[in-house]
Amino acid sequence: MAGKQQQRLPREVRERQMIDAAVRVFSQVGYHTASVEEIAGAAGISKPMVYIYLGSKERLFTACIHREADRVVETVRAAVHPDEPPELGLWSGLRVFFRFVADNRDSWTVLYQHARTQGEPFAKEVRAARNRVIAEITAMVVAGTRMPGGERIVSERDAEILARIAIGAADSLSDWLLEHPDESPDSLVDRVTDLALVGVERYNTGDLPPS
Amino acid sequence: MAGKQQQRLPREVRERQMIDAAVRVFSQVGYHTASVEEIAGAAGISKPMVYIYLGSKERLFTACIHREADRVVETVRAAVHPDEPPELGLWSGLRVFFRFVADNRDSWTVLYQHARTQGEPFAKEVRAARNRVIAEITAMVVAGTRMPGGERIVSERDAEILARIAIGAADSLSDWLLEHPDESPDSLVDRVTDLALVGVERYNTGDLPPS
Repeated sequence: MAGKQQQRLPREVRERQMIDAAVRVFSQVGYHTASVEEIAGAAGISKPMVYIYLGSKERLFTACIHREADRVVETVRAAVHPDEPPELGLWSGLRVFFRFVADNRDSWTVLYQHARTQGEPFAKEVRAARNRVIAEITAMVVAGTRMPGGERIVSERDAEILARIAIGAADSLSDWLLEHPDESPDSLVDRVTDLALVGVERYNTGDLPPS
Repeated sequence: MAGKQQQRLPREVRERQMIDAAVRVFSQVGYHTASVEEIAGAAGISKPMVYIYLGSKERLFTACIHREADRVVETVRAAVHPDEPPELGLWSGLRVFFRFVADNRDSWTVLYQHARTQGEPFAKEVRAARNRVIAEITAMVVAGTRMPGGERIVSERDAEILARIAIGAADSLSDWLLEHPDESPDSLVDRVTDLALVGVERYNTGDLPPS
């Protein structure tokens, strides 16, 4: 048993080293130019060992997408407190998401933008990660809009729609953020907040009949 | 001169026939399975003629994306009246956009979802079409939020952010709409409107401090 444990730990550590190196290399040179040899070199691991562990460049890239998707999901989850109102959760989530994108500019560009546009199996990994985030936001809105009596302000279907709006907007704004390096994640959230307030104000003064 | 005009008209007509046929064939069997021969057959035009006019399957598909993108841009533009407040324009635009997606379910799935995830040169066409829509929404918001005195409620940069939010949400919701055939475009817009009103109400009653 002890021997097994010892074997398992180094394998995880080595895999993490490989994926760290792969994220760096893919980010620097792009998926098509990157070679397994280069990634093995960056990880300080022999090329055959990389093949034994992760099989192929395609599987290495898929592992990178998966790992980075886990990181963004964890980051957003950690920022959202289950007992705060879902609106606050959405704002907190948006804020840490933009910070993540800005702090991981290179890997985000390659791993997400590239993965999303290069067909299967990469697009499938991205869809799976998106679906995890959508499910989490939906659950947060459902939990946060249940009244003490049990009835709901927002139905489950509407909660999912809100999650889709949030993720679609976050996606689209993260592209904008990467195109505007002069803008910080926090100033972007401030802009979005101000726009929401303009909307509320125009509605309240009767300028915005939404039907 | 008259001869030239006569030659030009049939070429446009034939190209339209080819692209109509190509949209049908790509939608039915997907990009990879579709053949130029099948498209030529569906258009009632010889295969060599298709190659003379549009060059290759790749260029045919690109022409389809371009033409369908023009259609969606025209549809949304026609629904927005330049002298109504931009909020109303955004709602009208969203409504006709969802109707377009629902009415063109097959071609939307193949041409847009496929184009967006299959790398260059298709992704480039999709980006160009998105950028056209973003520019139109931005211009609409800028024009519609200028006060009589000339000052602006919403800066040009914020108008672009609003456009990015709108297009990101519309994108994400159109995927949702295609996954829920029991839902109509209008009922989806009603759900989004109701969610916006819940947001306004929660803000007004102090439940939603957005900072």
